[in-house]
Amino acid sequence: MGGIGKMDEKIRLSHGDGGVDTQRLIRNVFYKYFTDPLSSNMSDSFVFEARQQKLAYTTDSFVIKPLFFRGGNIGKLAVCGTINDLATAGAMPLLLSAGFIIEEGFSIEKLQFIAKSMGDICKQTGAKIVTGDTKVVERSSADGLFINTSGIGMVSEFYNHRQAEPGDEIIITGGIAEHGASILLDRYDLGIETMLRSDCAPLSYLINGLGKSLKYVKLMKDPTRGGIATALNEIVTEHVLDVELNEQWIPIKSEVQAISDILGIDPLYLACEGRMLIVVEKGCGEKVLHHIKVLDNCSEAQIIGQFTSRNYGMVYMKTFIGGKRIIPTLEGQMLPRIC
Amino acid sequence: MGGIGKMDEKIRLSHGDGGVDTQRLIRNVFYKYFTDPLSSNMSDSFVFEARQQKLAYTTDSFVIKPLFFRGGNIGKLAVCGTINDLATAGAMPLLLSAGFIIEEGFSIEKLQFIAKSMGDICKQTGAKIVTGDTKVVERSSADGLFINTSGIGMVSEFYNHRQAEPGDEIIITGGIAEHGASILLDRYDLGIETMLRSDCAPLSYLINGLGKSLKYVKLMKDPTRGGIATALNEIVTEHVLDVELNEQWIPIKSEVQAISDILGIDPLYLACEGRMLIVVEKGCGEKVLHHIKVLDNCSEAQIIGQFTSRNYGMVYMKTFIGGKRIIPTLEGQMLPRIC
Repeated sequence: MGGIGKMDEKIRLSHGDGGVDTQRLIRNVFYKYFTDPLSSNMSDSFVFEARQQKLAYTTDSFVIKPLFFRGGNIGKLAVCGTINDLATAGAMPLLLSAGFIIEEGFSIEKLQFIAKSMGDICKQTGAKIVTGDTKVVERSSADGLFINTSGIGMVSEFYNHRQAEPGDEIIITGGIAEHGASILLDRYDLGIETMLRSDCAPLSYLINGLGKSLKYVKLMKDPTRGGIATALNEIVTEHVLDVELNEQWIPIKSEVQAISDILGIDPLYLACEGRMLIVVEKGCGEKVLHHIKVLDNCSEAQIIGQFTSRNYGMVYMKTFIGGKRIIPTLEGQMLPRIC
Repeated sequence: MGGIGKMDEKIRLSHGDGGVDTQRLIRNVFYKYFTDPLSSNMSDSFVFEARQQKLAYTTDSFVIKPLFFRGGNIGKLAVCGTINDLATAGAMPLLLSAGFIIEEGFSIEKLQFIAKSMGDICKQTGAKIVTGDTKVVERSSADGLFINTSGIGMVSEFYNHRQAEPGDEIIITGGIAEHGASILLDRYDLGIETMLRSDCAPLSYLINGLGKSLKYVKLMKDPTRGGIATALNEIVTEHVLDVELNEQWIPIKSEVQAISDILGIDPLYLACEGRMLIVVEKGCGEKVLHHIKVLDNCSEAQIIGQFTSRNYGMVYMKTFIGGKRIIPTLEGQMLPRIC
């Protein structure tokens, strides 16, 4: 075992130089949690047989701070993030890659914990990490650990990405801003006692769970960096339509609202890491919502608004007090390193 | 254009938060060089139709220091590195992903130069960068720029990865250690004047160029981190055979030998970034070499050794003076951040 895994052992530069130490690290930390015996070889590429099928392909890098947070860690987030990007294309995850950039001196015990979280999400979803890479940089040349994941998924035969139209309805699958609020709690010592956790979770169950009902779905987007406000603004810009949200329909936990109020941050701009915005054909919102609400993690799902016949590419919200305000794309800095 | 691209503009944290600045950066720097009009949308996953075919999948992260070196930069290296990993599986690159982790304050002009290099290699090879991600971390939380690439390639119908056997011959497609020696020259001010350049180049032309001759090839490996010594040791360990190299057959430029001598580093352990080790069926070495030598960048290709009937999993080398020495896998640190 070459000592890998002892409580106090730290990552050295030699763990990234491709020699004996790198191979030990890969075998004893990553392979232990990532691979099944069939695919555990040391070659540089993983080869697989594709059938006649629609595949989705995506990537994301993760630089979250802190690395461990209430409800998850950078590893869980890195696997869920890529699985969720595949889900936005109506795809179930098949194969994943994982690239690690590690700062010299990082704890191997922590790395094992992180790798185990990644493996756990894979087991849960059927995804397989089949190719990876490890680099080590000198102290102060990185902040602990960065992870990149990419993924290949199989697009559901029932899903057909389409242009949004006036009247199409918008569903969110659960409470908003729980990831963003959790990171704020853990990063700044706010002295708030709460059971709040990041919503970080894989959304592939949604693709599976919706099954044939996916045919009513026109498009999906996971509202990560920048929250539902940013995600909806991207959608209205691309589809050249307006969206009208209804504030009272948006599911938001009281703790999340409280943290947002204390910090003066609008929760519409705080990241989710286990929620999906789903655009459903006009008139089919309730039917699809009915299917969603019984799925894991989705009991708080709600229809939160709809596309309107205006085409300024704007997001509006009817407020509690009956007014209407524009929800713009934010200029300038929101929250750095939220994912 | 939102100012992006002005000579003096620097990356800010807001370029990584998913809002307006991120979208501008992606549109004006990355899309400009990466995408063709067909695939330029802002969605999180790229969807494509697979045929009944064998695909290869790989990933690599790049943390090279310095970011710009004689013969290339981190962007060129990141695209070539992943294309070359696909080539080791006999695959031509189809789709690539690119994930950027950028330090606050990094020059946007440099980023454009790097992105252009990536686009240039794509044009040259037919690869397409179809999905990407940008993260920004605070000053001192990363060393300028890290890039992760992953790639999907189509495996040649003529290539069939097989177990090596005694008598199989080993070809290197060109002079060794030129990348490693170039990085050493640029990193440490050695005061040596030389025309030496990194061999950094895409190896997909080799897969195309070999064509039907690939049927004589049993396996391939690109000798990057740790050089040909490390790559061959990985092969002998996996195939449980010995390899005997012949020192006088190994192509090495006199400048590379001189730099290695000055620094007391064995060039067998210095990285190549545009060479391939090719294991060819017993008796077919000369035939395959003949096909390789006419390809771009391959005029110095040589048969450098063969598998023997011993099975200790060791690499030996017959030296110039007629002796024989073991070429071990190095324990401990070689050269950090060579790729």
